[in-house]
Amino acid sequence: MLKGKIEIQSRISLENLFEEEKGTLGLIYTPGVAYVSKEISNNKELAYDYTSKWNNVAIVCDGTRVLGLGNVGPEAAIPVMEGKAVLFKILGGINAFPLCISTQNKDEIIRFVKEIEPIFGAINIEDIESPKVLEIVEGLQEILSIPIFHDDQHGTAVITLAALINALRIVGKKLDAIKLVIAGAGSAGYGIVKILHEAGCQDIIVTDSKGALSIDRDNNNSSDDMKNQYKLEISQKTNPRKLIGNLAHVIEGADVFIGVSGKGGILNHQMIQSMNHDAIVFALSNPDPEILPSDALQGRTRIVATGRSDFPNQINNAVVFPSILRVLLDIRAKTLSQDMLVTVANAIAGIVNDTHLREDYIIPKVNDPRILPTITKALRDAIQNM
Amino acid sequence: MLKGKIEIQSRISLENLFEEEKGTLGLIYTPGVAYVSKEISNNKELAYDYTSKWNNVAIVCDGTRVLGLGNVGPEAAIPVMEGKAVLFKILGGINAFPLCISTQNKDEIIRFVKEIEPIFGAINIEDIESPKVLEIVEGLQEILSIPIFHDDQHGTAVITLAALINALRIVGKKLDAIKLVIAGAGSAGYGIVKILHEAGCQDIIVTDSKGALSIDRDNNNSSDDMKNQYKLEISQKTNPRKLIGNLAHVIEGADVFIGVSGKGGILNHQMIQSMNHDAIVFALSNPDPEILPSDALQGRTRIVATGRSDFPNQINNAVVFPSILRVLLDIRAKTLSQDMLVTVANAIAGIVNDTHLREDYIIPKVNDPRILPTITKALRDAIQNM
Repeated sequence: MLKGKIEIQSRISLENLFEEEKGTLGLIYTPGVAYVSKEISNNKELAYDYTSKWNNVAIVCDGTRVLGLGNVGPEAAIPVMEGKAVLFKILGGINAFPLCISTQNKDEIIRFVKEIEPIFGAINIEDIESPKVLEIVEGLQEILSIPIFHDDQHGTAVITLAALINALRIVGKKLDAIKLVIAGAGSAGYGIVKILHEAGCQDIIVTDSKGALSIDRDNNNSSDDMKNQYKLEISQKTNPRKLIGNLAHVIEGADVFIGVSGKGGILNHQMIQSMNHDAIVFALSNPDPEILPSDALQGRTRIVATGRSDFPNQINNAVVFPSILRVLLDIRAKTLSQDMLVTVANAIAGIVNDTHLREDYIIPKVNDPRILPTITKALRDAIQNM
Repeated sequence: MLKGKIEIQSRISLENLFEEEKGTLGLIYTPGVAYVSKEISNNKELAYDYTSKWNNVAIVCDGTRVLGLGNVGPEAAIPVMEGKAVLFKILGGINAFPLCISTQNKDEIIRFVKEIEPIFGAINIEDIESPKVLEIVEGLQEILSIPIFHDDQHGTAVITLAALINALRIVGKKLDAIKLVIAGAGSAGYGIVKILHEAGCQDIIVTDSKGALSIDRDNNNSSDDMKNQYKLEISQKTNPRKLIGNLAHVIEGADVFIGVSGKGGILNHQMIQSMNHDAIVFALSNPDPEILPSDALQGRTRIVATGRSDFPNQINNAVVFPSILRVLLDIRAKTLSQDMLVTVANAIAGIVNDTHLREDYIIPKVNDPRILPTITKALRDAIQNM
């Protein structure tokens, strides 16, 4: 949209604002505002009551990994982050401001986010390259007193698990008994491994451009893999059968394929045919999925999903992030745990009841009005039972 | 106002947003937004056309000098900056977002502002302690490609000069012939000296807690004055008669007193009586002016102004800052010069015509609808004639 998709509005009534005797300007601005300032300076928590902090989310992006476009710079990230801010507002009622910043240095980004902490109730990290972004998120989790949400990691993981739970309902398989292959070891792959591990999935294999990650490969390898602690963490949580080889090899017999590789077309008919019966294929890379749904369904695939809105079963983070942030703000959460993410995934899956569950309808649409109340209830119940 | 004075709104129509075939979500967000991102990555200037950058202003504050309250911290600054954002919106149509930050370190604040440059069309620096803030503004003027406005310095200077021009019209004195004393050598005092110097005022004396600044005092003094390059710059531009002594001494025979000392009650009846006939007294410190208007008018004072809304002649930055920033954004200015500030002051003074000009009406009210068009025309004309 020309000239921007968001704007800042005053919540102050114009009536009487500038009147000399009883005008409200003197209340909302100097001198009246001094009273509120003093109160907050004595108790910082009051900023949640007296300012917009309770509802402010920063969308922080350095422009290094925007959509599938790569490092296009912070200015080019603005339209994407404004679109995100629109969804935050419409679906979660949240004031999200896009902070597309000119530094791409890890430590400077961490310092930057720490610096904006006073005015925001939560942070959304977006479209920063991996593994740098994983270090940023981990570093910030240690020093922030407000929750940090990394949509490419946490959002993708939650909606993927929700879709998987429902796909398994259809094919009648159990999460702790399936064999699952993930193509891609970036933010999304890392997030999906962590949530699947938390949810009880036992046999996960992750491939990158060099093939299957395994504890043997990554311990014996003197390449840059060892510098990436997150690939090491993945290899520790995955590949219990210690398979070696490329995607074509390790996908044999798998029940589920999840593609977050960023590479279109890497899955072919032969690989699909080597999977187990009633295969589930989530080809999530955008704009070009790992395999087109029509091609996947010509083989052993029973259920297919993509990240695209022009195919059925869109695995769309927008189902998740506005509502999760809404609840994090409402309960004034300090952190976001894997446990909470699994709770949300189960709640979203539960929205699709048995009557409606079908091969081409495994997750609710982004504007399903049940999403926010369902996630709210699930997270509040989970916290009360902790 | 409880829960904040501003909010972020979507400019996107909800109609058709989530429709599957012709829905606009795919245009404003992934995948359609990729086209716009690519365009901007090839030409950063397009961010002004395709995003909200053209209308975004950051209000940056570290909480070190909030109102008259001192260093209350960034959280306590939020309500003040939100009030400011409301005025930016109502009076200038600007999206101003308050960034109250947790660092109070000069170099870190400079780096912070440089980091947010991609998403903003201009910067407003606010309520940061002096002289640190003057170094920050000067440092940023050198490295930013967007204009930086320092309201405590530039805004106060412009509205004070505008009021002075009109007060001098009433008493029939000339700016280049008057003797003028300023109490206070912080951001406001520095800004007023610079604009008065640019406007042709010849005999200015500035006092701080140690008395009159002069090139002799500040060159011979090994105290911390010498560390403050801005006091040195003031002393170079002022005190041509090389007076020494406190306010009570140097105000003798002065035509104009301008108080920006932050100290209430420092001007007494005796000092007023020592001034020249038809004295002009601007006691601008808030909430306690250097002298109360009723006390000032018992002496030789003909015209008095304060910073307060409950007395006549409020010298209010809000008359200035929304419109200046509006024009800076509209013309995509890269910098803001003293010359431009004098132009604006003359334009604001000119709004009050001879018919309406009175001792208790020397500047337009904050919501006078003529302010924005008048400043716009004056600045556009000035730029065309450069």
